[in-house]
Amino acid sequence: MTEVETKKPQESLQDRLNQVVELLHKHKLVEDLAHRQEGQHQDIVENLVHRQNLAELQRKLDELHPADIAHILESLPLDDRLTVWQLVKAERDGDILLEVSDAVRETLIADMDDHEILAAAKEMDADELADLAPELPRDVVHELMESLDAQQRERVRSALSYEEDEVGALMDFEMVTIRDDVSLEVVLRYLRRLKELPGHTDKLFVVDYDGILKGVLPIKRLLVNDPDKEVADVMASDPVTFQPDQDGYEAAQAFERYDLISAPVVDKNGKLIGRLTIDEMVDLIREESESEVLNMAGLREEEDIFASVWKSVRNRWAWLATNLVTAFIASRVIGLFEGSIEKLVALAALMPIVAGIGGNSGNQTITMIVRAMALDQVQTSNATRLLRKELGVALVNGLVWGGVIGVMAFYLYGNWELGVVMTAAMTLNLLLSAFAGVMIPMTLQRLGRDPAMGSSVMITAMTDSGGFFIFLGLATLFLM
Amino acid sequence: MTEVETKKPQESLQDRLNQVVELLHKHKLVEDLAHRQEGQHQDIVENLVHRQNLAELQRKLDELHPADIAHILESLPLDDRLTVWQLVKAERDGDILLEVSDAVRETLIADMDDHEILAAAKEMDADELADLAPELPRDVVHELMESLDAQQRERVRSALSYEEDEVGALMDFEMVTIRDDVSLEVVLRYLRRLKELPGHTDKLFVVDYDGILKGVLPIKRLLVNDPDKEVADVMASDPVTFQPDQDGYEAAQAFERYDLISAPVVDKNGKLIGRLTIDEMVDLIREESESEVLNMAGLREEEDIFASVWKSVRNRWAWLATNLVTAFIASRVIGLFEGSIEKLVALAALMPIVAGIGGNSGNQTITMIVRAMALDQVQTSNATRLLRKELGVALVNGLVWGGVIGVMAFYLYGNWELGVVMTAAMTLNLLLSAFAGVMIPMTLQRLGRDPAMGSSVMITAMTDSGGFFIFLGLATLFLM
Repeated sequence: MTEVETKKPQESLQDRLNQVVELLHKHKLVEDLAHRQEGQHQDIVENLVHRQNLAELQRKLDELHPADIAHILESLPLDDRLTVWQLVKAERDGDILLEVSDAVRETLIADMDDHEILAAAKEMDADELADLAPELPRDVVHELMESLDAQQRERVRSALSYEEDEVGALMDFEMVTIRDDVSLEVVLRYLRRLKELPGHTDKLFVVDYDGILKGVLPIKRLLVNDPDKEVADVMASDPVTFQPDQDGYEAAQAFERYDLISAPVVDKNGKLIGRLTIDEMVDLIREESESEVLNMAGLREEEDIFASVWKSVRNRWAWLATNLVTAFIASRVIGLFEGSIEKLVALAALMPIVAGIGGNSGNQTITMIVRAMALDQVQTSNATRLLRKELGVALVNGLVWGGVIGVMAFYLYGNWELGVVMTAAMTLNLLLSAFAGVMIPMTLQRLGRDPAMGSSVMITAMTDSGGFFIFLGLATLFLM
Repeated sequence: MTEVETKKPQESLQDRLNQVVELLHKHKLVEDLAHRQEGQHQDIVENLVHRQNLAELQRKLDELHPADIAHILESLPLDDRLTVWQLVKAERDGDILLEVSDAVRETLIADMDDHEILAAAKEMDADELADLAPELPRDVVHELMESLDAQQRERVRSALSYEEDEVGALMDFEMVTIRDDVSLEVVLRYLRRLKELPGHTDKLFVVDYDGILKGVLPIKRLLVNDPDKEVADVMASDPVTFQPDQDGYEAAQAFERYDLISAPVVDKNGKLIGRLTIDEMVDLIREESESEVLNMAGLREEEDIFASVWKSVRNRWAWLATNLVTAFIASRVIGLFEGSIEKLVALAALMPIVAGIGGNSGNQTITMIVRAMALDQVQTSNATRLLRKELGVALVNGLVWGGVIGVMAFYLYGNWELGVVMTAAMTLNLLLSAFAGVMIPMTLQRLGRDPAMGSSVMITAMTDSGGFFIFLGLATLFLM
């Protein structure tokens, strides 16, 4: 982990991106010219300009932090992205690969040969290798593993044995361990001998001779206590610990709740096997919120915004197909009442209002419930109460807005019975949308599925078919 | 900030919540009984049981970290919430108030008298007071300010002078400052004299006699370097700094990008005036993603899931009203074509398919664009390219799914011209939804608005009215 010493980089990140884009465009312009012109003399001149531009671009990129380059790569279309990648990949490719999003990483790795990948991986820690491994060609991974020493290989294997979002896959192995029977003075001297401490070291891990975690010594305490004191007297002996098979998102919530910076991971016997750090947790928190947004909208996964049309189509395919089926069902519901619509064509114009407002209101409910579930605020014990509240909101909205729309229907079509049916249908559909908005995510969770998954598509399906059925059914009963 | 030493609290948080709920229910059951029974003897017995339950609950709560109590309060309906609040508020009300969400905090403060609020606020730091102040009664704030010393008052005032999400409102004042002309040994002795270091102290701030920031001394370097060295030789002299009027979310992104734990805030002259810490930034990252979700669904703000029906109605009112207007417009679009529907009632059954799938696909596009914008990946320079890609995806989806639906329409109604119109309308509406999905958030951003704000409602409005117009228009042109 490199120490950052650039001044106010966040201010000018956008500027830097723009500078890179500008240099890229200059470069491309010259390339285009070179293609079009034939004279040899001109070729040489343009080649010079071309090289100057690339050199300038290279200089610019060399100044940037790997995280900034990652951001620039993510913000560039594929061809520009690969031009930049060619310029930076020789030296800092490893750091950059670890910073970019999965979707973009795939495009970068596809541009590297085995030799380049191996060189990039050589400088990585075991946990970083494990992060990268699933996306590398199989034989490259094999060769990589061969090149590691036994402890490193064991660590990579262990990290790979856990699910992507389990603590075991998120932890690193850069723990500084000490014994509890030494003085703080000895600890201070020990640290000095290390020359460098791992990033995010806010505490040292106190272990016994079998590697069992006995406590943690926060650096804060090491600094303010008398150096003659023993570690055992100063350490926190009952720290927050995590198990490797625990859900990473739970760990992230604990980090957030208890303001942790690093925390030990122990196995079933209490043996220290790794540590979690806040930077991994922040990434997880962000990813979790993102996948909530994406899943609700029916996107299968994070999408490289410059992905090919074909890739994007595949990413959105599943939920669109589902939506097609539900829309077809809604259409058949209307088909049931074609006779009524023929007699009173106003029904065709009014029915989308009932369905649309139900869908909108249902989306509000479901968004709120999915969020509360992500924060663990919803239990079976309070489900009924939540449902009652949402039904109350729906009833108020239905009577008020349904009333408004009913009056408008009356004015438009001069038929007061149509107005009453409209109000009644709006109210009933809003009640249905509230019911579905609470029950869909709860049912998904009980089935062990992600409650956000396509919930927006599902609620819209319910309120569409339901709305048409309620409105056209009531109209057929009372107006025909 | 209290040091957490509870063992694996994250494992049992849900259990603890359940225990509290159970105790609360016991307590309420007894209360109910006491209300119903009249005999005096029984009253006394039940009063005893009642008190025992409360005592047990109190014991349970006393063991918990303020953040855990905050979580429990957020997960309880209002009456239970206030019962628990009564039990905890005497001692740790300040810590807990700072941990709960804004919506829940409001309900808790409403339950406190001025005296209690003042007592709770007494132990807070200036930045915490500033967080709380906007939600307190005006005269309480006045009294609070009177009770502060000049420096504290000045700090609260300064924090209050910034927007809620500016760095100046997010920073705290717990900086440990040192001079650059002393040895590390002197620094170590100075820290020991402090007895305690502020939370999240991963670096010390090096300032000159005028308070101008000259660099930072990471604790890591303090620990591994020779104590005889001078601060000036070891410090990082060009650290990442922030300005108080900078956007907090930008700062949070910088924290994430550069793996920061704390960072100095300086004024225009380079004078150190505060510091940002990762815990505030994590909160901000979470809030930002949440407000994105909420805004897209048309919820005005974060909602206490147990808010009263009336409060919830108000929170959702604005976008529902907008939706009512847009639905009405869509209805009038259909009204234009009532003649065609009378002649061919199949149009009424098929038109929601065109509108619905357009809405769904538009929501996928807009979700992706809003996310990319939040990550600063979208510039005007790549807008055209994005638009072209989304139009490409829409074209593929329109021809494929529109084709499927066209064939189905043909089979259902035995009218091949209807099938062709259906396919054409689907394709055109998907192109419209892609166009709107890219342009709506971009336009909102150019107007200086939040691109997520109600974007889902807006895109649905476009694809509904647009879809009806395209489909019914084509049908009227070619089928009548």
